[in-house]
Amino acid sequence: MPVLGAIEAGGTKFVCAVGTGPDDVRAEVRFTTTAPQETLGRAVEFFQRQCRAEAIAAIGIGSFGPVDPDPSSPTFGYVTTTPKAGWTNIDFAGTLQRALGVPVGFDTDANVAALGEHRWGAARGLDTFIYLTVGTGIGGGGMAGGRLMHGLLHPEMGHIRVPHDWSADPYPGACPYHGDCLEGLAAGPALEGRWGRPGETLPAGHPAWRLEAEYLALGLVSFICTLSPQRIVIGGGVMQQAQLFPMVRQRVREMLNGYIHSPAILERIDAYIVPAKLGSRAGILGGIALARQVAGLPPE
Amino acid sequence: MPVLGAIEAGGTKFVCAVGTGPDDVRAEVRFTTTAPQETLGRAVEFFQRQCRAEAIAAIGIGSFGPVDPDPSSPTFGYVTTTPKAGWTNIDFAGTLQRALGVPVGFDTDANVAALGEHRWGAARGLDTFIYLTVGTGIGGGGMAGGRLMHGLLHPEMGHIRVPHDWSADPYPGACPYHGDCLEGLAAGPALEGRWGRPGETLPAGHPAWRLEAEYLALGLVSFICTLSPQRIVIGGGVMQQAQLFPMVRQRVREMLNGYIHSPAILERIDAYIVPAKLGSRAGILGGIALARQVAGLPPE
Repeated sequence: MPVLGAIEAGGTKFVCAVGTGPDDVRAEVRFTTTAPQETLGRAVEFFQRQCRAEAIAAIGIGSFGPVDPDPSSPTFGYVTTTPKAGWTNIDFAGTLQRALGVPVGFDTDANVAALGEHRWGAARGLDTFIYLTVGTGIGGGGMAGGRLMHGLLHPEMGHIRVPHDWSADPYPGACPYHGDCLEGLAAGPALEGRWGRPGETLPAGHPAWRLEAEYLALGLVSFICTLSPQRIVIGGGVMQQAQLFPMVRQRVREMLNGYIHSPAILERIDAYIVPAKLGSRAGILGGIALARQVAGLPPE
Repeated sequence: MPVLGAIEAGGTKFVCAVGTGPDDVRAEVRFTTTAPQETLGRAVEFFQRQCRAEAIAAIGIGSFGPVDPDPSSPTFGYVTTTPKAGWTNIDFAGTLQRALGVPVGFDTDANVAALGEHRWGAARGLDTFIYLTVGTGIGGGGMAGGRLMHGLLHPEMGHIRVPHDWSADPYPGACPYHGDCLEGLAAGPALEGRWGRPGETLPAGHPAWRLEAEYLALGLVSFICTLSPQRIVIGGGVMQQAQLFPMVRQRVREMLNGYIHSPAILERIDAYIVPAKLGSRAGILGGIALARQVAGLPPE
C-alpha cells in the first residue's frame, strides 16, 4: 500500500507524519507554528525527506481556521480570515501541492479529526455524528448523511450562544468576538480566567467542573436538536478531566427531559457522548484518512 | 407525467393533494386532524377517489412528529412518541401504502417543506440549508450535503436553548418539556402568553417584535455556527409579520460580529435569511417533490 502524508496544523503547533494508519506511522515531526513561509517550508522539507525513502501518494491536512474547504472555490485550501498574525489568506494546500507534486486534501482541524474517529475511532460505521474538541478553543465538525460537514463555510460550533446565568457565574466570557458564547464560557482560557489558575491545576472535585459540565451540556443539547447526531465524540485538553463525561451526560439527559425519545439517549447515553478513541491522535490520523480518500484508495 | 399525491399532516389540520408541481395541483382537500383511524381513512378515501380519474405514482407525506423517517427501521413511517392524544406509535405511511398500493415517502413536516423550497422555492440549487417554521411551534429541517437532515432521529431545532434575560423578559417560556427553549420563548403561544393577546393582533411597532427578533436571531446564530447553511428559509404564521425579517437579519449580523467572514452574511444578508418562497404551500408541494423522488422520476 502506498504511504500517505498528514498535517495537523494548529495555531501553536504543527504535526507532520507519514504512514498508512494507527499502527503504521513511519515518521513524525512536531514544530512550533511561526510565520507561514517558515512553517510551511518545514513541512515541505519533512515530506521531501520522506519522499526519498518512499513515494507519498497524497497529503491530508487538517488546519486551524477559518479555512476554505470548498474544492470548487478559487481559494480552496487557504487559511482565510484567521486572527493569527501573518496567516490571513495563506494558500496552505496549494503551497504543499506545488512543492511536492502530490494531491492534497484540506479541511478544518475538527472535520479531519472527525474523519480519523470515523475510520479508526469512536465514530466507526456512523453517517451523522459530531466531533467536538474542547481545549484552548472549542471546535466542532463531523458528518451529516455520510459527508464531512460543509456549507456556506464550515461549522464554528464553539461560537453558539448558550444561556449564561450572570448571577451564578459573573465571568463575562473570553471570546474576543462574542464574549460569552460557548467557547467564551467553556474553553481553557475561560477556566483560567474565571478561576485564576489553569484548568488542569483544579482538583477533580472543584466547582469549576460542575459549571463546565453545565455549559458543555447546554452546547450539546443545541447540537443534538439541530443535527440529530447518532453520537457525539469529544476530545481536547479540557476533556482529559474524565469526571466531566458523567456530569455532561447526566445534564444533557436532564435538559432534554425525555423529548428526544431515543434509547441512545434515554438508556445508553454512556455510548452516546463519548471520549475521542484516538485521543490526541485523531487529527494526524484523520489527515492520513483524508489523504487516502484524495489518493483514490479504496477503504481497507 | 404521472400524477403524484401529497399529504401535509399537521397536529390540527391535514391537507391532501394530487398534482405534479406548483402550477398543477389538480385536487386538494383539507380536514381537521381527529383520531388516527378516522383521519387516515379520510386521506385514503381522497386518494382512492382521485385514483379513479388517474393513476397515482407515489405519495409523499410530511408529518407532525416525532416520526421515524429511517427507511431501514421496522417503524419507518410511524408517528412515534407524539404528545398528540391517540397518535402515539401510529403506522402512518404503512396505512397509506397498504390501502393504496403505491410507494410512500415519509419525513418530518419541516424536512418535506424544505424539499419543496429546494425544488421550487427559495433554496433552489443549494445543498446545505435550513428551513425553519415559526408558528404554533418552531420546527426545523433542511439539507446537509444535498441530503435531507436525518441522524439519530431528525432535527428538533425549536428545542435548542438560547440566552434568556429574565430581568428584561420574565416570561418563563411555554414549552411543556423545556420551558424557555427557543420554541418556548418565540413560538406563537409564547407571544400570546407573554403579551396577553395573540401575536397577530399586536401592531407592527409593538415591542413584542423586537424581543421576538432577538430570540430568533439567537437561534439562527446557533444554527449558522453548527451547520454553516448556505441560506436560511423561514416560514410559518409568526413570520407573516414581515417587519421581523430586517430586525432578525440585523441582530444576526451584530451577534456574529464579523466572525463568519462570508459575503453572504457580511454583504448580502437580505438574500441569506429569507421568507419561504412557497409560503404556506411549501409543505404540500414538498410532499409532491418527495413523491416524485419515491416514484423514481427524474428531476424536471
